[in-house]
Amino acid sequence: MLDDVHFVLSHTTHPGNIGAAARALKTMGLEHLRLVNPKHFPSAEATRRASRADDILQRTEVFDAIQPAIAEHKLIVGTSARSRTLPWPMLEPRELAQKIAKDPTQRPVAILFGTENSGLTNEELSLCHYHVCIPTNPDYSSLNVASAIQLIAYELRLAALDENLLKTDHPVIDDEGELPASGEQVEQMFEHWQQVMTSTGFFKPIKPKMIQMRFRRLFNKAALTDSEVRLMRGFLASIKKFNSEEG
Amino acid sequence: MLDDVHFVLSHTTHPGNIGAAARALKTMGLEHLRLVNPKHFPSAEATRRASRADDILQRTEVFDAIQPAIAEHKLIVGTSARSRTLPWPMLEPRELAQKIAKDPTQRPVAILFGTENSGLTNEELSLCHYHVCIPTNPDYSSLNVASAIQLIAYELRLAALDENLLKTDHPVIDDEGELPASGEQVEQMFEHWQQVMTSTGFFKPIKPKMIQMRFRRLFNKAALTDSEVRLMRGFLASIKKFNSEEG
Repeated sequence: MLDDVHFVLSHTTHPGNIGAAARALKTMGLEHLRLVNPKHFPSAEATRRASRADDILQRTEVFDAIQPAIAEHKLIVGTSARSRTLPWPMLEPRELAQKIAKDPTQRPVAILFGTENSGLTNEELSLCHYHVCIPTNPDYSSLNVASAIQLIAYELRLAALDENLLKTDHPVIDDEGELPASGEQVEQMFEHWQQVMTSTGFFKPIKPKMIQMRFRRLFNKAALTDSEVRLMRGFLASIKKFNSEEG
Repeated sequence: MLDDVHFVLSHTTHPGNIGAAARALKTMGLEHLRLVNPKHFPSAEATRRASRADDILQRTEVFDAIQPAIAEHKLIVGTSARSRTLPWPMLEPRELAQKIAKDPTQRPVAILFGTENSGLTNEELSLCHYHVCIPTNPDYSSLNVASAIQLIAYELRLAALDENLLKTDHPVIDDEGELPASGEQVEQMFEHWQQVMTSTGFFKPIKPKMIQMRFRRLFNKAALTDSEVRLMRGFLASIKKFNSEEG
């Protein structure tokens, strides 16, 4: 799906934004950039801002009018601030991404971005099936063009991940070989803890049952791994040893 | 909710990124930016890249260490690439935003961003309850720091909009009316813990940095309440007292 999306930048003024756009696309696994009458391209500034995404710039196609840049697309979408003279079907970026992910007949897709100062012209917007509007702060909606590209590319990537892979939960516990501690391990740790608390005298002043319960809750919230249990026991053992050395 | 989120940038090298960060925040209705040892600030380049978001820069607070910048926060989150030596509880940006939107007891929140080249240090990451990882292209995950800020700010805005519209259920508050411990409380507890580990000799045999990190991870997973911090400190104090009585 991500291979079926073209980002089309019309009349971009600052080459730095073209470079930043390439970088934004590549971080999200997108790669098709088209430029319509850019003010400067190619440009050293674009290459610099692209960081190591300059392969995208090398494959960027340049057009001298908008129509040929969107000739083969099934779905054409223009980015726009909310209020326009002519109301148009609107999508938010997340809705757009889901639409593209769920319906292959809508692909290939072109997503148009206008010039930095004033956005897409009314004529360019009229070529689009939908306008997509990023829900910005109404008091300050001045989103940089590369930032707008970053946000839409991000939504496309998430929608693609959702569609392809079942979204995996992130276990609180790691992927690098640590296992949750067994109930028995944790129980032994608590026994050890209790012995230490008894010998340090921490148990005396307050109700011991309550203290135990509170420590249990604390460590259960942490969902200990086996290596963490060993770590805690090492610490507890050091207190005892410390005592017999000093005592 | 958006007013309760601080974006904390540690050791930022390029002032342009600070300006772009301010702009990114303001487009999403966020406004709190903190800097820890920025290479250049204030800077004309930051102001230029901030566009008309320079009011954010004027109110930006600068710190000379990370701890005071996150002292009052209930939830501390660090942005990170996926693979780290020490696995940590992970969230995607969308999950993070929903967590913050749905649970007022988690606020104020600090979200940390590291230096451009290498991100947050392991030490900075160990201060966090969660690491947040933006699902980038595994072959090119080089997200610009201001772009990462843009994406997370966007998710926060959407979650805040959702919450207002949907009228969420009552916040999940701890059964016993307990509040999450602040970053400062937890930090003081760790200092205390470290003193005790040093005096019991637990620190000697193995690498102390690693031990510290592992304890931090364990207790951050537990999301300690203030009364739990007091409980732990009572226990730690009893070890010291035990020592001086016995010794």
